[in-house]
Amino acid sequence: MTRYKATIAYDGTDFAGFQTQVNQRTVQAELEKVLTKLNSYEPVILQGSGRTDAGVHAFGQVIHFDLLGQPRDLERLRFGLDTQTPADIAVKKIEQVDEQWHARYCKHEKIYEYYLENAVTRSPFSRNAKAYFRYPLDFDRMQEALSVLTGTHDFTGFTASGSSVDDKVRTISQAEVIQLDEENFKFVFRANGFLYKQVRNMVGTVIKIGNDRMPVSQIEKILMTKNRDFAGPTAAPEGLYLKEVIYDQGE
Amino acid sequence: MTRYKATIAYDGTDFAGFQTQVNQRTVQAELEKVLTKLNSYEPVILQGSGRTDAGVHAFGQVIHFDLLGQPRDLERLRFGLDTQTPADIAVKKIEQVDEQWHARYCKHEKIYEYYLENAVTRSPFSRNAKAYFRYPLDFDRMQEALSVLTGTHDFTGFTASGSSVDDKVRTISQAEVIQLDEENFKFVFRANGFLYKQVRNMVGTVIKIGNDRMPVSQIEKILMTKNRDFAGPTAAPEGLYLKEVIYDQGE
Repeated sequence: MTRYKATIAYDGTDFAGFQTQVNQRTVQAELEKVLTKLNSYEPVILQGSGRTDAGVHAFGQVIHFDLLGQPRDLERLRFGLDTQTPADIAVKKIEQVDEQWHARYCKHEKIYEYYLENAVTRSPFSRNAKAYFRYPLDFDRMQEALSVLTGTHDFTGFTASGSSVDDKVRTISQAEVIQLDEENFKFVFRANGFLYKQVRNMVGTVIKIGNDRMPVSQIEKILMTKNRDFAGPTAAPEGLYLKEVIYDQGE
Repeated sequence: MTRYKATIAYDGTDFAGFQTQVNQRTVQAELEKVLTKLNSYEPVILQGSGRTDAGVHAFGQVIHFDLLGQPRDLERLRFGLDTQTPADIAVKKIEQVDEQWHARYCKHEKIYEYYLENAVTRSPFSRNAKAYFRYPLDFDRMQEALSVLTGTHDFTGFTASGSSVDDKVRTISQAEVIQLDEENFKFVFRANGFLYKQVRNMVGTVIKIGNDRMPVSQIEKILMTKNRDFAGPTAAPEGLYLKEVIYDQGE
């Protein structure tokens, strides 16, 4: 057995999310189908750094998996996997790793990006690739709200209810908004982990603040009360990209 | 009756092309469905500046149509048409024009853009939005080939056989390639008109020249002999965008 780490990109539009679900088209299932073929038809179960929801994209999701036999030629393996998976998945890089290495449990930070089109008319080219908000947004108010989110907090108020994780304290080391052009914003979040729907709930809240329908102080209130009801709506999935998973050195 | 000129964008991925065809999803048919509704259910037939093929996109196609009654509020009409058409069509602008004005017959130039990803791995996000070529491309050779195409020529050798147009002389006032980044090229063509599949045949030929599998002098040969067999393959539709239709002033 040899363990491999792979960096993949996918367009989440036509997937029911990353993780395998019965009778659904998922990124994991599509990859495992091909990996099993490349493993002399012995089933392969892969592990991702985490899940992404239906419609959410990835520029750089990281997975690991084991294949029978000696280490393989990495570019040949990458090319085989890339060309045999559907066109909405790309396999960008494969490395050989120690058999202890684990995409989920090895310590890492994640970077998410969120693309938002803020224009009078929604572009037909962004309908699956960016979220859309028609009304005015105040850049400074959004940046201020994001600066309150930065740091170590209990993010219970920004996660979906029914989440099974106990410890909801996370450290956000970067939370900012960039104005790409007159009609486009990009939000960037970097943290040692994110709770279920946390990024989309933070973006939905920040948009509401940017549109002046919530005070900036609401962020503090949501963090303190841990009450999801005070937060804005969950922002649409099509704007969200798992940009990068950054592992600690030596792991 | 009042005549309107509209500028529209569409993602061509899920259309069988611009022009109405029996039992096919087309841009024209989707627009006419809504226009007819806005015209008290009296059928509306629109005219485009020209057709685009299946999979080809538009940033700025121009159409005209007539609606019953007095001139309407233009922003209200635009908004109604934009929001009632499917998400892969956007209505960007509506102007009222003279009843003689004609999207196809009023003198105009067209600008087409062609996006090409030139990378080892095809991005899942460009699969419907850019063409893809895996092998090396020489920028200078492509630019040289494009400069030979510029000017007034008989483009018979670059059109699909069976084309019904008699006069195949066109004037290309701009033909250039721009390197957008390490993995992306954009071709720009401006002319007083293009023949059926002309842009894609020119791009397919220029790519072959850029990959050094055809001499630059082949362009001259195709123009002189008017023989399609000497040209490269028709480049894929998903890279092509009708960027703009520029009408002469006063028309």
